[in-house]
Amino acid sequence: MKASPQPITLLVTGGTLDKDYQATSGELIFSETHLPKLLEEANSTLPIKLNVLMLKDSLEMLDSDRQKILDACLESATDRVVITHGTDTMTDTALFLKNSRQLTDKTVVLTGAMRPFQLNQSDASFNLGTALMAAQLASSGIYIAMNGELFEASQVSKNRQQGIFELHT
Amino acid sequence: MKASPQPITLLVTGGTLDKDYQATSGELIFSETHLPKLLEEANSTLPIKLNVLMLKDSLEMLDSDRQKILDACLESATDRVVITHGTDTMTDTALFLKNSRQLTDKTVVLTGAMRPFQLNQSDASFNLGTALMAAQLASSGIYIAMNGELFEASQVSKNRQQGIFELHT
Amino acid sequence: MKASPQPITLLVTGGTLDKDYQATSGELIFSETHLPKLLEEANSTLPIKLNVLMLKDSLEMLDSDRQKILDACLESATDRVVITHGTDTMTDTALFLKNSRQLTDKTVVLTGAMRPFQLNQSDASFNLGTALMAAQLASSGIYIAMNGELFEASQVSKNRQQGIFELHT
Amino acid sequence: MKASPQPITLLVTGGTLDKDYQATSGELIFSETHLPKLLEEANSTLPIKLNVLMLKDSLEMLDSDRQKILDACLESATDRVVITHGTDTMTDTALFLKNSRQLTDKTVVLTGAMRPFQLNQSDASFNLGTALMAAQLASSGIYIAMNGELFEASQVSKNRQQGIFELHT
Repeated sequence: MKASPQPITLLVTGGTLDKDYQATSGELIFSETHLPKLLEEANSTLPIKLNVLMLKDSLEMLDSDRQKILDACLESATDRVVITHGTDTMTDTALFLKNSRQLTDKTVVLTGAMRPFQLNQSDASFNLGTALMAAQLASSGIYIAMNGELFEASQVSKNRQQGIFELHT
Repeated sequence: MKASPQPITLLVTGGTLDKDYQATSGELIFSETHLPKLLEEANSTLPIKLNVLMLKDSLEMLDSDRQKILDACLESATDRVVITHGTDTMTDTALFLKNSRQLTDKTVVLTGAMRPFQLNQSDASFNLGTALMAAQLASSGIYIAMNGELFEASQVSKNRQQGIFELHT
Repeated sequence: MKASPQPITLLVTGGTLDKDYQATSGELIFSETHLPKLLEEANSTLPIKLNVLMLKDSLEMLDSDRQKILDACLESATDRVVITHGTDTMTDTALFLKNSRQLTDKTVVLTGAMRPFQLNQSDASFNLGTALMAAQLASSGIYIAMNGELFEASQVSKNRQQGIFELHT
Repeated sequence: MKASPQPITLLVTGGTLDKDYQATSGELIFSETHLPKLLEEANSTLPIKLNVLMLKDSLEMLDSDRQKILDACLESATDRVVITHGTDTMTDTALFLKNSRQLTDKTVVLTGAMRPFQLNQSDASFNLGTALMAAQLASSGIYIAMNGELFEASQVSKNRQQGIFELHT
């Protein structure tokens, strides 16, 4: 542990975490990222560089989007990167980043939420807390922080029935 | 990182995190711990052993309480311990545990909240997320996880004016 | 005003008010009515007879459903009836009840919400408060209580762009 | 019921409804009124004239404060007045207004909350909904709207043990 925390890049890509209910349409939509509000509620004093790359449902994410995320990781001036991402294809993006073999010197942690931050009783704040701490403490690699656990990119899959992440069987 | 998460002991001692507003008195009181509800909202799949030691405002915590916390750490079957604690004397308890020199093989992380979990916009879930991740990743020692950062017990103090924890100057 | 409040029948039919976010599907669904929880939070001491008729999106409501609502109004032992209902066809049901000409002795107030009660910052509690008070104070007739206002069934329409109810122009 | 709602004066005096938790002190304090936020969440379209008279715990309210409230009622250009007020002396203020015999042409409804609006699961929105509807529908007089019920000023007292308002026994 360093005397003072290293800067962390926080890449926002959307996902359930950042959705909100739109009253006129009755649907869950993206309007803006809620990460600044979440970090303020959390009283975070971390030196975070926020970078909103996109606000996308991860089911609609293309490889060109993943390339954009990879580029942002490479261009980030920090060795510590947290990425908010939809849970449905979070493992795909994690593998894309890992298989690029271009991020070997960075600690990259993907996280998200099963319930939007803007709704009551969301898991967003807890998950971001775990991801930001993992980014500070884990050795270089590509990780997913969900359900309180830290998974290596190649070892995890989403159990859609239960809505949790778990090690490959 | 292990293939499967190690069990974590979660010692509850009270503090702002677990207070709630009592309508009839108009005061903030302790009724029960809200940690199980917090962990459920967070979709935690961690193997957590919850142990409610006391529900106390940390300003009222005595050395006999701190001894009780130390005993619970020693008696815990796990190497990973998270303690929820009021913020006002969190550093005192951390130093008490450190100075006992009896926990050298364990990773002990204290955390809490500036705003009760039961109120809106609390930092409780974020903080517990950081503490549980730190307990899994940090080497043995006594730590405080607040504001997204991880501090060693002997290096941190609470800035009461700003309501944040920071390194000693 | 009577010395003691008269009993009120509360007919639940669903609508946005009673929807909740389902994490595994990422959709807003009906699981159960949240009216008991809402009334408990509100510290209501009203003698309410709760009757869950259905949990339907009002866009899927058929005339057979409206007949069921009318029957429940007729069968209710009280002169005061509040109906929770989706906003999209709330005026249709209000007119259905009015045109039946069978409820001339009862005060019937429809209400709902633009944002589910289970989400943060919902209008559900406010709207139900207005509806329950209107049911106690208004003379017999079929009304809609939304946006703080009380509208007669034949005089109101929903402005879908703005998500509010207003008098016919 | 009029074709269009009459203007309503909303006098803010403080009380639990408008308190919020202050993290640095750990106490419930007044910073600003939250009525505009409450009305926005409620999607209120009522023509409300908001007037923040004071932000006081009602246990600290003096007769000079009550005179100030009476003056504001008299000076209001509307016949419909809603007053937010702490619950502990709400009945005292209601009687003060009634005994002045100067408001015989106005409908004045006092309301408040047992749990602050800024905390989760508050009764504030429900109560304000009932009060605003009662102000529109009740004949002239001084009333208290709490727990879903409407009480005449001279007939009600607060049951402090249960935290509810009830008719005199």
